[in-house]
Amino acid sequence: MEKLSDPGLIQYIYDTVEKTAFYQLVGLQLQSIAKGEAVFTLQTDERHTNPASLIHGGIIMAMADAAMGNAIRSLGVMGVTVDCSTAFLAAAPVGSLLEARGRVLKQGKNMIFAEAYVYSGEQLVGHCKASFFNTGPLQY
Amino acid sequence: MEKLSDPGLIQYIYDTVEKTAFYQLVGLQLQSIAKGEAVFTLQTDERHTNPASLIHGGIIMAMADAAMGNAIRSLGVMGVTVDCSTAFLAAAPVGSLLEARGRVLKQGKNMIFAEAYVYSGEQLVGHCKASFFNTGPLQY
Amino acid sequence: MEKLSDPGLIQYIYDTVEKTAFYQLVGLQLQSIAKGEAVFTLQTDERHTNPASLIHGGIIMAMADAAMGNAIRSLGVMGVTVDCSTAFLAAAPVGSLLEARGRVLKQGKNMIFAEAYVYSGEQLVGHCKASFFNTGPLQY
Amino acid sequence: MEKLSDPGLIQYIYDTVEKTAFYQLVGLQLQSIAKGEAVFTLQTDERHTNPASLIHGGIIMAMADAAMGNAIRSLGVMGVTVDCSTAFLAAAPVGSLLEARGRVLKQGKNMIFAEAYVYSGEQLVGHCKASFFNTGPLQY
Repeated sequence: MEKLSDPGLIQYIYDTVEKTAFYQLVGLQLQSIAKGEAVFTLQTDERHTNPASLIHGGIIMAMADAAMGNAIRSLGVMGVTVDCSTAFLAAAPVGSLLEARGRVLKQGKNMIFAEAYVYSGEQLVGHCKASFFNTGPLQY
Repeated sequence: MEKLSDPGLIQYIYDTVEKTAFYQLVGLQLQSIAKGEAVFTLQTDERHTNPASLIHGGIIMAMADAAMGNAIRSLGVMGVTVDCSTAFLAAAPVGSLLEARGRVLKQGKNMIFAEAYVYSGEQLVGHCKASFFNTGPLQY
Repeated sequence: MEKLSDPGLIQYIYDTVEKTAFYQLVGLQLQSIAKGEAVFTLQTDERHTNPASLIHGGIIMAMADAAMGNAIRSLGVMGVTVDCSTAFLAAAPVGSLLEARGRVLKQGKNMIFAEAYVYSGEQLVGHCKASFFNTGPLQY
Repeated sequence: MEKLSDPGLIQYIYDTVEKTAFYQLVGLQLQSIAKGEAVFTLQTDERHTNPASLIHGGIIMAMADAAMGNAIRSLGVMGVTVDCSTAFLAAAPVGSLLEARGRVLKQGKNMIFAEAYVYSGEQLVGHCKASFFNTGPLQY
């Protein structure tokens, strides 16, 4: 992990994450940010469950998307999700602490590619890849 | 659309949807159910937005997954999402009424395949395909 | 299906398909082209099989990509595949005639979205969605 | 990479790869196999091109599928591809040597999950994730 050296960018990313209504609704927290990488966590509870009392897949997908989108923003650019594909490797029990680790694979002029792995404790529960359209430098 | 003829199954589906905590958190509503098809709606508001005040992609993915998962349940079986891939064709503005239409493409002994289209008014904003593991008959 | 009215474009598409080395290697044939739609066929034989003597999944993915890419070209623009996701609904036996039907879902300034269904006779064997980067007008 | 210790399994995998007609048609070579991992290579030439004289995306998808499918077989089981999603990060020029590295992420009783990265020299050109149905022990 290469540390981010621009304190203004770090501040901007944490500020906008905190202001993102959907993250607040779900309870997503930005755990760490590095160059081309971001980690989100979620302390799951009853609000996040499906009828089987397991964590709903929509939570896994949203966390992965957040981790990848902010991994992209760590490079000083903005990416709009074009396509996102998620595999569900195992069920996550309610009460588990989820961690989504996103990483940029390639930053192109037009397209940006990323992947994310979502863990429930030590167990891999989600594997995600996505492509983003590069809308240009962040204004901060 | 072929009507569902089993009132017990219809009741069971509506009941479990209402009890699904994550659907309640987001605000998803089951609009209609037919044989192999389900439609969910969401009246979007500020809670569903990203920093650009557009609807967060996680909402689109969760709606599509709900529409496909319940389209499967309309066949009297339960499917666990294995893989879900979503394309984001256009941004949905806050305040828009979203509608996700899910449809089963094939019900196999082991795997079930489905697709969903998500609309914001007349505009197609999400296109989703997913595969599910068939865990067997619903107990209702 | 809306007919293509530009004979020069039709001719150009058939010509380039015939000159595409990979299509020739596999044996893909452009069956028909309409506005935003294209159909490819393949008479399968032993060359297309996996060790189980079924048609290899790579054939299904290549046909779907061809059908979507040429559905895009029917609109007078060129699309470069960014992401392609394929579900395999059933196995196709050797000797079957495969048909891939591609359709453009949305033509945007930057991104183009498409889907394809691949049939072996009456049976749906492949379901594909893909996103393409719009590289601009075809030069013909 | 953990070495495979069963010489009979190694021999079986190499033998069946050599007998796979579609691999021979395209020119795919099994480069190495380890526990849960497999590497395929392809020396590209004019036969693999699209009209722009770049390597056709179908080649990238087929290589990735081969690398993942044989990574699974290295575990002594057979997996049938259920869903395969590929991102195309960069174009591969004709004449390039392609290398697809597949890896199993999780081997479950019913489902097996894998990923693959395809390189043209040092450059990442393809990123793939896929889910497979576990059809049980290999008979060899």
